[in-house]
Amino acid sequence: MLAALAEANGGHQQAYGADVYTAHLQTVMAGHFGEGTVTFPVFNGTGANVVGLQSLLPRWGGVVCAETAHINTDENGAPERMAGIKLMTVATPDGKLTPELVDLQAYGWGDEHRAQPLVVSITQTTEMGTLYSPEEIRALADHAHARGMALHMDGSRIANAAAALGLPLRAFTTDAGVDVLSFGGTKNGLVFGEAVVVLPGAAQHDAAATALPFLRKMSMQLPSKMRFVSAQLIALLEGDLWLRSAQHANTMAARLAEAVGGFDGVRITQQVYANAVFAILDRTVADQLRAQFKFYDWNQATGEVRWMCAFDTTEADVDAFAAALKELLARAGA
Amino acid sequence: MLAALAEANGGHQQAYGADVYTAHLQTVMAGHFGEGTVTFPVFNGTGANVVGLQSLLPRWGGVVCAETAHINTDENGAPERMAGIKLMTVATPDGKLTPELVDLQAYGWGDEHRAQPLVVSITQTTEMGTLYSPEEIRALADHAHARGMALHMDGSRIANAAAALGLPLRAFTTDAGVDVLSFGGTKNGLVFGEAVVVLPGAAQHDAAATALPFLRKMSMQLPSKMRFVSAQLIALLEGDLWLRSAQHANTMAARLAEAVGGFDGVRITQQVYANAVFAILDRTVADQLRAQFKFYDWNQATGEVRWMCAFDTTEADVDAFAAALKELLARAGA
Amino acid sequence: MLAALAEANGGHQQAYGADVYTAHLQTVMAGHFGEGTVTFPVFNGTGANVVGLQSLLPRWGGVVCAETAHINTDENGAPERMAGIKLMTVATPDGKLTPELVDLQAYGWGDEHRAQPLVVSITQTTEMGTLYSPEEIRALADHAHARGMALHMDGSRIANAAAALGLPLRAFTTDAGVDVLSFGGTKNGLVFGEAVVVLPGAAQHDAAATALPFLRKMSMQLPSKMRFVSAQLIALLEGDLWLRSAQHANTMAARLAEAVGGFDGVRITQQVYANAVFAILDRTVADQLRAQFKFYDWNQATGEVRWMCAFDTTEADVDAFAAALKELLARAGA
Amino acid sequence: MLAALAEANGGHQQAYGADVYTAHLQTVMAGHFGEGTVTFPVFNGTGANVVGLQSLLPRWGGVVCAETAHINTDENGAPERMAGIKLMTVATPDGKLTPELVDLQAYGWGDEHRAQPLVVSITQTTEMGTLYSPEEIRALADHAHARGMALHMDGSRIANAAAALGLPLRAFTTDAGVDVLSFGGTKNGLVFGEAVVVLPGAAQHDAAATALPFLRKMSMQLPSKMRFVSAQLIALLEGDLWLRSAQHANTMAARLAEAVGGFDGVRITQQVYANAVFAILDRTVADQLRAQFKFYDWNQATGEVRWMCAFDTTEADVDAFAAALKELLARAGA
Repeated sequence: MLAALAEANGGHQQAYGADVYTAHLQTVMAGHFGEGTVTFPVFNGTGANVVGLQSLLPRWGGVVCAETAHINTDENGAPERMAGIKLMTVATPDGKLTPELVDLQAYGWGDEHRAQPLVVSITQTTEMGTLYSPEEIRALADHAHARGMALHMDGSRIANAAAALGLPLRAFTTDAGVDVLSFGGTKNGLVFGEAVVVLPGAAQHDAAATALPFLRKMSMQLPSKMRFVSAQLIALLEGDLWLRSAQHANTMAARLAEAVGGFDGVRITQQVYANAVFAILDRTVADQLRAQFKFYDWNQATGEVRWMCAFDTTEADVDAFAAALKELLARAGA
Repeated sequence: MLAALAEANGGHQQAYGADVYTAHLQTVMAGHFGEGTVTFPVFNGTGANVVGLQSLLPRWGGVVCAETAHINTDENGAPERMAGIKLMTVATPDGKLTPELVDLQAYGWGDEHRAQPLVVSITQTTEMGTLYSPEEIRALADHAHARGMALHMDGSRIANAAAALGLPLRAFTTDAGVDVLSFGGTKNGLVFGEAVVVLPGAAQHDAAATALPFLRKMSMQLPSKMRFVSAQLIALLEGDLWLRSAQHANTMAARLAEAVGGFDGVRITQQVYANAVFAILDRTVADQLRAQFKFYDWNQATGEVRWMCAFDTTEADVDAFAAALKELLARAGA
Repeated sequence: MLAALAEANGGHQQAYGADVYTAHLQTVMAGHFGEGTVTFPVFNGTGANVVGLQSLLPRWGGVVCAETAHINTDENGAPERMAGIKLMTVATPDGKLTPELVDLQAYGWGDEHRAQPLVVSITQTTEMGTLYSPEEIRALADHAHARGMALHMDGSRIANAAAALGLPLRAFTTDAGVDVLSFGGTKNGLVFGEAVVVLPGAAQHDAAATALPFLRKMSMQLPSKMRFVSAQLIALLEGDLWLRSAQHANTMAARLAEAVGGFDGVRITQQVYANAVFAILDRTVADQLRAQFKFYDWNQATGEVRWMCAFDTTEADVDAFAAALKELLARAGA
Repeated sequence: MLAALAEANGGHQQAYGADVYTAHLQTVMAGHFGEGTVTFPVFNGTGANVVGLQSLLPRWGGVVCAETAHINTDENGAPERMAGIKLMTVATPDGKLTPELVDLQAYGWGDEHRAQPLVVSITQTTEMGTLYSPEEIRALADHAHARGMALHMDGSRIANAAAALGLPLRAFTTDAGVDVLSFGGTKNGLVFGEAVVVLPGAAQHDAAATALPFLRKMSMQLPSKMRFVSAQLIALLEGDLWLRSAQHANTMAARLAEAVGGFDGVRITQQVYANAVFAILDRTVADQLRAQFKFYDWNQATGEVRWMCAFDTTEADVDAFAAALKELLARAGA
């Protein structure tokens, strides 16, 4: 990434995206997602989501999403506050929507009293570490499109999903009917930078692509030195760095689940598909462990925590973590 | 109401609330809610809720409410779109929050990633026709205040609640710890008009009362001829018209429940405390009935409908409704 | 108006506009503005403006208006705060825009850094009491439409304009190229109520008409008992009440200007076309006068004040005002 | 900058600002602006302005600024759209506010119809290349504070101002009464990154510092890998890189003005204090020049353009530009 930044630093380039890197990025992205892909680099994931959702919604639109969706839980209301978007949430067992779950909120079109459900937003991999198959996404896309809704994907962990599925990116995006994608860079090694991606065949493709430059700017997500975002995304995506990084993170999560899954006092709560491990353990032990390793509570009521592995997590990191947990559990049990 | 409007029509009065009616309304409301009550007439219930909630919230605030709350389901996202408010919803069996249910969303203060839960909003009577006791409201108020949160009440049916409880208005508002109230007028017979009411003893009493004139104006809820709202509210509240109207509506709902509760093919789903009857019946029958009488579906999935009685519903109306339903059921069963 | 309310009070009518009055209002309005007129009753003028402007604008739109426009000066930022609308203001000598003045802000389409100027908003009569001729409005409409912009009219005093011009309403609206109109009721005698009107031939006619129910509701401007607004508008507009009221107010303003125009110490600053008189006078005298008669400062820097006449201003009111002013001036000069 | 990024890349650091670089940045900034300075890294200048202004304003607040202010002209309405901020603009001859100019908009406190003017926002150096002296800023701060208003500075070119004034940063910020500052990094060589800075002695210091983490997150301006912004700001500010870069840019602008100021057909329109040169020249020549060198029109009506010099503009760049312009003028004159 730093090499990419250094290269982008050379020579004079125009600001706000009129540079050779951003132009080349369009080609690189089209290689992954198909001809007709239009890519808008932005600063961060919350920005990508809020900008992308606006491109698919009139002022009175609503977004059907899982209760656990990042846009609902971890963006301090940015969709509501910055874009006036109504989130129409659905409880799920595993962070995944299905057509049946979507229908719990997708109704009432034409009723002026109700936010009009016009987008379904899914996260791949989900906030709970689970994974949609291409078929599941296609079913959601068909269901949404049949109702005049668009399908948005929060892809902050899309590389981990591709690695877990063993499929090219387009197999579960463009080819599965996704309309607009938040492509995640930061969690996959970028210094900063994500992208809003309008996929080929999107129902509102041209309208969204026309709207996005304005939406990005007014949403404070237009990088003046855009070449630095584009160059990093190119470095990530032109070869297989994105995939190797993600595979590595996934492998580390599997190693972690394997290592701690058998511990007395640790219950792994979601199947580990990608780079996240969810577990319930004693709260005191969790807090002691947190003194050495940073991680978040997922559900304070149940004591569930979330352990994430990243592109730069090492086997030694995982093993040290498991050893520390083992010792703390032993001490607690003594 | 029309007599009140006619009276307010006489003589010259200043606009925007600097009139004798609005001044007198302050006294009338203080009589019901206690010294220190400050009342801000507005146009409608959605406006009262959005203006009142803003007076209790910083830009980063969230509101814990029931999934079934009117602010969540029937205002087309006005809280989110007009005020950037994050609603933090909780599933409930009967439309009522409890301290335990509030805690499903009330956490994470200080965590910048999360909308800060700073208000609990309840509806009295609820959207499902259920009723909070003063003790239940006091428990919510204490719970909220102990966490630095305020308690907001959507009182679009507050008169029905008072009638059902057989208590003065202040017993389950001011005296139970409510901070800001949306006082409902339209559903109780006004041509138009509701009020945002800052109650005595509200933790943010002075700040809210100072903010509200600005919030009301910028939220497009400042009636220029405010005397017409105030005069109607006075006519409603100075005597016992508000109570008689509400008692009547409640009585009509009880009559309706009594009449149809025993019908084969009708299941009343919520206890009838006030002016609403919830029932599940055959969808075809419901649609046939709707051809003669206007009512809403409550839950399309289950076939649950909501029948509301108002201040001007007559016994004959109820009996005609019950008779029509009986006949339709008979025909359907034949 | 009260008779109209009383009549609308009779019988049962459905809420939210599905009533016979609102249906009939469509016909009445079409009589004034032409076939294809679609009318949306709302609560107040600020609401009409903010709802109507939203129907013409994408999220990134801007509105070119005079610095003195009500939407800019007297709505506490409602367009910005409730709808995220960027106002692009132009200084004018008399409150009126011209194509040349519009061009001071109407540029930069396609430049993502700039709010896209997509609406021109004018007020008829203006906030300074001046009046657009049909030809002037047509020139603005043609200029706007040629640039892909729409023309919005804030018509809170539209009846006064018609009276001053001696023309039917459609002559300087529909026939002059206006797209969306805020039709003023409150200033013309209604207890409350205004309307957003999509005019025949509006470029975005169908899109606006489809959007407006949602925009009205989410903007907290949907009257549940809409029949009461509609019935008043019918009473105003079905006969010539609207015109007589406005003619009367205009006549009173002319009488006032005539009476005080010659006073030493009073300088009338704008030609009096309709129901407003603008004057500069000694600040102390103005304040003394204000103790007896309510009026607003227009420009504190210059000591300019605005005297408005209404449908219910009497000759005796005007004469008493002039006499009081004369006496105060005499005393001040002594 | 890239070295700073590389260094920050080493080792594991916590996200969202809980890292050693961001901690150290607080000390570096306090060295420049005084004890009590609190610094919040963000992504870009628009973000810094919108986040910082929100920290000083209630929902009903307005910001008095020059018509030419970047927040008014070049942010596609982000302050209005993202934060509901009303901009109250003032025409200026040179992009600079004075207490007298502020008073054209600073009035009407307590009037609910008017956005409440609660912040004065200035840009240093201004968008027209002009410069406030410390005394001018102090006069504005005193004027604002006496009226209950805060003083915000858009400091995207603050380093150029310090270089032009020959003064330390705090002399014309903290010591001159500025409350909140947008500190510019991108224009001074950062790959990306700016900061919202709450200055010591700010009237709302603690409230703003408490609000800013939430405002930053919800405004989509919280960098997850904040260390990379902080490390760059440290590299810029710990030594004198910031000053040398700015001095260089200023010198280049002076060189440019010197070189072209005497050309027939070029009129320099603003005194050159810092890194911007404003000039009026023939439109055709300007467009021909633009084919070789990127620059913006400033005022299309007058043909005024803006030539900016940056930290990486070389003498050769300037000389080539001047030579090209000379030739184009000669050809046009032939």
